[in-house]
Amino acid sequence: MDAKSFEALTVESLPARLGGLEELRSRLGAEPSAWRVREVGDGNLNLVFIVETDKGGVIVKQALPYVRLVGESWPLPLKRSFFEYHALTRQQARAPRQVPEVYHFDEAQALVVMEYLTPHVILRRALIEGRQLPSIADDLGLFMARTLFRGSDLSMSTRQRKADLALFADNVELCDITENLVFSDPYFEAELNAHTKPQLDPLVAELRADRDLKVTAQRMKHLFTAKAETLVHGDLHTGSIMVTDSDTRVIDPEFAFYGPIAFDVGMLFANFWMSYFSQEGHEEGGSREPMRAYLLDVLERCWSVFRTEFSRLWREERNGILYQRTLFEDQGDALGAEQALDELLHEIWVDLLGFAGIEIHRRILGLAHNADFETISDQDLKARCEAKALKFGRHIAVNRDRIHSMSEANALAARLCKGAVT
Amino acid sequence: MDAKSFEALTVESLPARLGGLEELRSRLGAEPSAWRVREVGDGNLNLVFIVETDKGGVIVKQALPYVRLVGESWPLPLKRSFFEYHALTRQQARAPRQVPEVYHFDEAQALVVMEYLTPHVILRRALIEGRQLPSIADDLGLFMARTLFRGSDLSMSTRQRKADLALFADNVELCDITENLVFSDPYFEAELNAHTKPQLDPLVAELRADRDLKVTAQRMKHLFTAKAETLVHGDLHTGSIMVTDSDTRVIDPEFAFYGPIAFDVGMLFANFWMSYFSQEGHEEGGSREPMRAYLLDVLERCWSVFRTEFSRLWREERNGILYQRTLFEDQGDALGAEQALDELLHEIWVDLLGFAGIEIHRRILGLAHNADFETISDQDLKARCEAKALKFGRHIAVNRDRIHSMSEANALAARLCKGAVT
Repeated sequence: MDAKSFEALTVESLPARLGGLEELRSRLGAEPSAWRVREVGDGNLNLVFIVETDKGGVIVKQALPYVRLVGESWPLPLKRSFFEYHALTRQQARAPRQVPEVYHFDEAQALVVMEYLTPHVILRRALIEGRQLPSIADDLGLFMARTLFRGSDLSMSTRQRKADLALFADNVELCDITENLVFSDPYFEAELNAHTKPQLDPLVAELRADRDLKVTAQRMKHLFTAKAETLVHGDLHTGSIMVTDSDTRVIDPEFAFYGPIAFDVGMLFANFWMSYFSQEGHEEGGSREPMRAYLLDVLERCWSVFRTEFSRLWREERNGILYQRTLFEDQGDALGAEQALDELLHEIWVDLLGFAGIEIHRRILGLAHNADFETISDQDLKARCEAKALKFGRHIAVNRDRIHSMSEANALAARLCKGAVT
Repeated sequence: MDAKSFEALTVESLPARLGGLEELRSRLGAEPSAWRVREVGDGNLNLVFIVETDKGGVIVKQALPYVRLVGESWPLPLKRSFFEYHALTRQQARAPRQVPEVYHFDEAQALVVMEYLTPHVILRRALIEGRQLPSIADDLGLFMARTLFRGSDLSMSTRQRKADLALFADNVELCDITENLVFSDPYFEAELNAHTKPQLDPLVAELRADRDLKVTAQRMKHLFTAKAETLVHGDLHTGSIMVTDSDTRVIDPEFAFYGPIAFDVGMLFANFWMSYFSQEGHEEGGSREPMRAYLLDVLERCWSVFRTEFSRLWREERNGILYQRTLFEDQGDALGAEQALDELLHEIWVDLLGFAGIEIHRRILGLAHNADFETISDQDLKARCEAKALKFGRHIAVNRDRIHSMSEANALAARLCKGAVT
């Protein structure tokens, strides 16, 4: 295997090219010709292979030098694989067993060999099917609290934190995707945009003329680019999460960079709220009322678990340069540290509502739509679901410093869903 | 001259070691033996030489691998010279003729050869002497607006901005000085602290027990470390500024890194306010009432010029990825851009008050004191001046989001100064 020049793997070439790696031989057996290889990448960007024998299985994920969905006309650097590898190893250390284990990384070939998660399914798919996963609220609340706390100056040595800031600052192209597709394109008639036509046309025109909303979106973009607070996953939606009833794993952190704590939390919550508003479009098999109640409960509980775990880490692992114990606990002023924690959690809450509202908009008005809505075949029904979500997103983003609690946000979602407010 | 191993220059060795450089020969003449060399470094960190002939002069500034003031027991990386060089060249491009021109940089020898500013004096010294410099408010308002706007995502290509973020993220040791000496040490009994004893003891105890103040200081530290908004000077006090009646130059940017816009502005204003409170200690030659009026006017005018120039750049040079014209002006919504500008300027105002209050405290309670107060020989008088400044700093930092304007802040300073409020 040439260590220098990149070559895309194929189902046929994979065993020969990777057959010498001890990390694979120990898991799959020492006869590469007996390895069964399938290409299963259904994402937009990469090649993904499942390699199996009776002994076990691994995932081989390889970046391509362009956006797979679009083709060679949209080049994208192979280095995203490098960022994914470095994010995965850090997340594994900070939130053990919540990301796939990495077995091997080859920078020149832009490939990561990692744990094959089975019988896991993509969380988004499960929620569309109406499955109530019992452990996601806890698992994801813990994952976010741990990775976001432990990747910041609250916990790390500042030298290491700044080295990581510099390392991930080079992830320019993937940040650029977010900067444009999430924060700007949805709010004007950008070329790559799409929305459900003609049903949503009037509302879309209204939103694109909404000054407060546009200013809010740009304020959030400013935070996204300039608030280098912690190592964020950067793309933490329900399509980046694989689940069973008892296990939750976060995958695909190639958008990782130093950004605001609230970004991951806001994006995840936005995807739960979108799932909530989309349930109405999936009721052919029966009422989704229990599913809606479940989703609001997941939001309430995930935010509560996040705050509880973040607060625990604050009290037990606050060993970085920020809010030092010398100034508070060591002076007998533990309440001073609690006051600072309350300020920080409040700031995260306000910012996450902003990010969540914008994420909802870009998934309905921008380039990358969600299967939650896209799988609703009745276009009028789909548009009704999307309209409620759009209005909810506008409200929580613009009014983010006037909404006090998750129950208040959820109550608004419920009133919009029932048509009690339009 | 060995390009590899560092060797400190001396008055004797300088002509021989630098005599071959065309950048010096063209300015000083081609006979190094005729160059007159003086070492004039009165700062805490570096060697500074003036090299002159009848033809002209240059400054040679060389870093030492330790803190000059303390000695080899406090090592400090030579690389700060690299950051100074890169900051100077960027500032020169962004705010022409407001920093010394760089003639030559030698990374291995950690030395920068630059413009000899004469007959300039250090601004702090001039203010202590009661000199009213007519152009500093305008010059410094423009300098800050231009460097801070043009070093951010408001103006730069985001790829270049992120490359600079990474480059300056390595300036760990000098940021560490600020993180500790400015934001934390003053608020507990840190070893390096000093204050006027015993006169200030009761007030110092009160401030170190002040929960809201300590939380504020740590919130500002969090902003300092995590808000990577623009290339800041990082040490913009009146000792880093050289002036004549008609020229103002900003020197010594070795603390440069990506931080909050408000940091430079807050630190500079803090130093003007400290000069204001210290004037009472310098009245042996006559009333300093006109000087006090001048300083409040400088604060008012500098902030006004900053806002006016920042707003002009916003309207004319907003070519970065933030608050794009496509969303506002191009949609006929110029007022949307004005709304975002107002939000940003308001945020800068609130944050600068926080940074200013903390800067005042660290200059009276921490390691590095200001000549403004230190040159007052009557210790009771000195302590009275310092106490007023400390109370002012506490008030503006803790109440930073409740103070509406510079005239309001200045009115408080005046009432404190007169003893109308204590």
